[in-house]
Amino acid sequence: MALRARALYDFNSENPGEVSVKESEILTLYSEQDIEGWFEGTNSRGERGLFPASYVEILRNDAASASNNNSCSTSGDSRYANIPAGGFDGSYKPQNKVENFSKPPPPSLCSFSAPPPQQQTYQQHSSAQHSQGSDDDWDDDWDDNSTVADEPGTVGGRYRDFEGNGPSTYRVSTSSMQRANAQQAKSSATVSRNLNRFSTFVKSGGEAFVLGEASGFVKDGDKICVVMGQYGPEWQENPYPFSCTIDDPTKQTKFKGMKSYISYKLTPTHTQNQVNRRYKHFDWLYARLVEKFPVISVPHIPEKQATGRFEEDFISKRRKGLIWWMNHMTSHPVLARCDVFQHFLTCSSTDEKTWKQGKRKAEKDEMVGANFFLTISTPAAPLDFQEVESKIDGFKTFTKRMDDSTLQLNATVSEFARKQISGFKKEYQKVGMSFKLLSQAFEIDQQPYSAGLNQAISFTGDAYEAIGEYFAEQPSKDLDPIMDLLALYQGHLANYPDIIHVQKGALTKVKESQKHVEEGKMDRAQAEGINERCNIISCATLAEIQHFHHIRVRDFKAQMQHHLQQQITFFQKITGKLEEALQKYDNA
Amino acid sequence: MALRARALYDFNSENPGEVSVKESEILTLYSEQDIEGWFEGTNSRGERGLFPASYVEILRNDAASASNNNSCSTSGDSRYANIPAGGFDGSYKPQNKVENFSKPPPPSLCSFSAPPPQQQTYQQHSSAQHSQGSDDDWDDDWDDNSTVADEPGTVGGRYRDFEGNGPSTYRVSTSSMQRANAQQAKSSATVSRNLNRFSTFVKSGGEAFVLGEASGFVKDGDKICVVMGQYGPEWQENPYPFSCTIDDPTKQTKFKGMKSYISYKLTPTHTQNQVNRRYKHFDWLYARLVEKFPVISVPHIPEKQATGRFEEDFISKRRKGLIWWMNHMTSHPVLARCDVFQHFLTCSSTDEKTWKQGKRKAEKDEMVGANFFLTISTPAAPLDFQEVESKIDGFKTFTKRMDDSTLQLNATVSEFARKQISGFKKEYQKVGMSFKLLSQAFEIDQQPYSAGLNQAISFTGDAYEAIGEYFAEQPSKDLDPIMDLLALYQGHLANYPDIIHVQKGALTKVKESQKHVEEGKMDRAQAEGINERCNIISCATLAEIQHFHHIRVRDFKAQMQHHLQQQITFFQKITGKLEEALQKYDNA
Repeated sequence: MALRARALYDFNSENPGEVSVKESEILTLYSEQDIEGWFEGTNSRGERGLFPASYVEILRNDAASASNNNSCSTSGDSRYANIPAGGFDGSYKPQNKVENFSKPPPPSLCSFSAPPPQQQTYQQHSSAQHSQGSDDDWDDDWDDNSTVADEPGTVGGRYRDFEGNGPSTYRVSTSSMQRANAQQAKSSATVSRNLNRFSTFVKSGGEAFVLGEASGFVKDGDKICVVMGQYGPEWQENPYPFSCTIDDPTKQTKFKGMKSYISYKLTPTHTQNQVNRRYKHFDWLYARLVEKFPVISVPHIPEKQATGRFEEDFISKRRKGLIWWMNHMTSHPVLARCDVFQHFLTCSSTDEKTWKQGKRKAEKDEMVGANFFLTISTPAAPLDFQEVESKIDGFKTFTKRMDDSTLQLNATVSEFARKQISGFKKEYQKVGMSFKLLSQAFEIDQQPYSAGLNQAISFTGDAYEAIGEYFAEQPSKDLDPIMDLLALYQGHLANYPDIIHVQKGALTKVKESQKHVEEGKMDRAQAEGINERCNIISCATLAEIQHFHHIRVRDFKAQMQHHLQQQITFFQKITGKLEEALQKYDNA
Repeated sequence: MALRARALYDFNSENPGEVSVKESEILTLYSEQDIEGWFEGTNSRGERGLFPASYVEILRNDAASASNNNSCSTSGDSRYANIPAGGFDGSYKPQNKVENFSKPPPPSLCSFSAPPPQQQTYQQHSSAQHSQGSDDDWDDDWDDNSTVADEPGTVGGRYRDFEGNGPSTYRVSTSSMQRANAQQAKSSATVSRNLNRFSTFVKSGGEAFVLGEASGFVKDGDKICVVMGQYGPEWQENPYPFSCTIDDPTKQTKFKGMKSYISYKLTPTHTQNQVNRRYKHFDWLYARLVEKFPVISVPHIPEKQATGRFEEDFISKRRKGLIWWMNHMTSHPVLARCDVFQHFLTCSSTDEKTWKQGKRKAEKDEMVGANFFLTISTPAAPLDFQEVESKIDGFKTFTKRMDDSTLQLNATVSEFARKQISGFKKEYQKVGMSFKLLSQAFEIDQQPYSAGLNQAISFTGDAYEAIGEYFAEQPSKDLDPIMDLLALYQGHLANYPDIIHVQKGALTKVKESQKHVEEGKMDRAQAEGINERCNIISCATLAEIQHFHHIRVRDFKAQMQHHLQQQITFFQKITGKLEEALQKYDNA
């Protein structure tokens, strides 16, 4: 029986191998197992290809059989054929959905996206069954399959502008801006989605914890401290801070060259031992972290890409994204110290056995979701929940405004980069060319007293052409990094609605329990327990928010300084070129 | 009987009061007397207004009566009415043209244009009858008539771009680029026009002089020397070089405020006496100079403008044009010293009587056209005509190439200016606005450690807005002057085909006379005379060409240096602003 899914959002294919789907469209899936966040399947127009797994919901049992009744007798085999799954389209309404969660967000706008496992792990709590099948197929994941990569038509695509006559990351960015708009719409939708407020609260384990249903043995090493700082609760600082470099992405092959993948060299400062990691390792780690930490904003890893994965531009872009990600990981007092991340950073790439042990241990970790809260120790004095609520509401407003303004800035900067690469460059080079034409015309006059001037004008023409080139080169130095930063923060901003939601859910439970106590339906001790556990969640949430503000100020300050320094260098280089040209006239 | 004219070129009205005409269209004129280069009349669609006199040819006698036969009984009075002169259009062919000269060129592309008198004076040799009628109507000329000026709809028009949302001189320039293309077409047409080679040669008096028909008494003071310089014949330097400033254009009124005009304060360095002159005085002087000097490239005065003459931008632009013009006048060894120019520069503005005496004297000057050549004394050794011809041919090629490249440069620079005023400014300001929005979003977070960053980002936003403004302000400082220079040189380049033609005509006469002598049709002495006189014309032409190259090298060198200096200052200013912004982060 064909496996069916319904599209939750529009998806426009942008690369070979992808197919476009429309919201509400019924799709036939090749397999229930996504391939690194992508499903392969057939849309209602019979086009076969890839689409993001997070854009669709699987229709099970009743819904699927209802589909089958209407379908053109699509058998299990026919999903390989291009048989249109007509008759379903937008008009079809699934009768039953097993997974009736709130809509998962579509992949975030920029280079960082939360992979689908995040959506699934919420419901599985501490189960490891989801974890990408057995170790045996660990190496067969699709991301590194060279048969899909290196597709023609994608090489050089990063720097091609709308007219196809100039380089541009920004086409990608601009088209991703369309998604950004969708994202923005979604952003607001996320806020309202939380009105259906139990979804995340339940899935994260927050509810179970507040109600005292979580239990587990907390080892001393697992203890996570929230302390009272100058500006409120904050994570206890990592006493052994470290960082980690990511270098030399290299193409590796295995199975006698049948499979290729990119390997990154990671060197953490606290071990100084280099380990090699692939994108799928990052992806696996990310899934573990999202599963484990309900109120911590795990930085998104750079988004997947089906095609062109071995292209230099893409590799360089992904590496930059991973560096940003690593920076946020090592900066986080909780994430930096957690076992699975340490295993990822320190386990020798050649010691297969130890790696697999650590991998299994992480996948079987019991202190995830609801149990994570058990590991948190709070300051002695409990928080004033009214104050907490006000702070959380303020932060909610803040994130919304920051989301809007970073989207706006990203769009502007992306367009600015595109203009510099195409328009600005063209204008300066046209002027340069005109000066050169003038000097060529002047050269027809063979008067000796004219020769110096002719050379000087010709040099000026060259200078303007060079300046045009400078303009085209500049965005990669001072605008791309801004966009990388914004993409990372867009990821965080997409995390916060869920985090806020867990805290709000806990607060609601407190209010309910107070009412129950007043009505005599609950004993005071039980309500006290809910209060205490809500205090733990609140401390963790406020500590996380405090951490967010700290890294935000640090990152934006550093990035703005970097940008301005680069711009200053840029304009000084132009000035230098013009001064050089001016000197040519001294003896003209 | 209505006076008729036929349009030689398309003219598109760009200001209130003007009407568009199509090539070959038959027009009804208000008067045969042009008003500062413009005719008032009615086009074939019955629209009444102004069009450039040089764009049309008057149809006389037979042609006019033929026209009349076909016209809708347009009487003398009906020319005031909006009666379409239908039935003539393009299909009409004038049966007879009294003035069957080669087409006069349309007004040159930029700010400098040769007024129609130049066309007429060629045929009138030394007659003064053309000179704008009697002294009585001297003050009634149309240029300064305030009833036409200050039309609504022109104020602010100088800096309005295509979308109507930004300032732009360049709309004007860009539309003049269309004319420039026509001019370029014409430019080539001028070269081929000289195949009908006797026209200018005859009109200028060149032929009369070569044939020994010129006669007049040359006073010692009128003698003009060509000397042999390092690079060939050149005008003897002015032993008393001077320059002249043009300041404070002020609006004056007379006839109890009924008429208004702009008066310019001229202060020549050799007298240090300020005199006041109006545009019409420049225009009158220009006509005298063109009439008098057949092989000297008289710089064109800034073009006439029917409307908006009292607008500040226009006044400032015209003043700049007049300064360039004055600079070329005082730099020219012959023009600088001639009586009529000295009279113009030195005669007191209040001494009405002396002014009129000098005016009448200039208009009755006999040493114009053919007779001008009598005043030239040459180096002792006659020139090698073959070498002369080669030099002239080289110069012809040069002017054509220079014409092409200056047109191209003008178009590029004009577009570059427009882009800076609209596009570049907009991009920087959009980025600035986005930074400000981000800082406003950040301000929602009241953390004390964030305040410094917020202020710094806000300041950066302001800095980008300021930089956008710098971009918009810059073209008037370093691109407008280039366009002014190019406009002046376009005027010179438009003069040269005629100058070259006179010299070529003289050379042809020499060749003819040699043939005649060989055939025994002419005695040797007569041919000798033709040789000598051709030598005079050749010396004058080569001296003029040499002078042109000298001022060209001087002007373009100075202008390129000015441009680069301004650009350097501009980029330094931007750098300074960015450095200021960067400092704000030091304590953020």
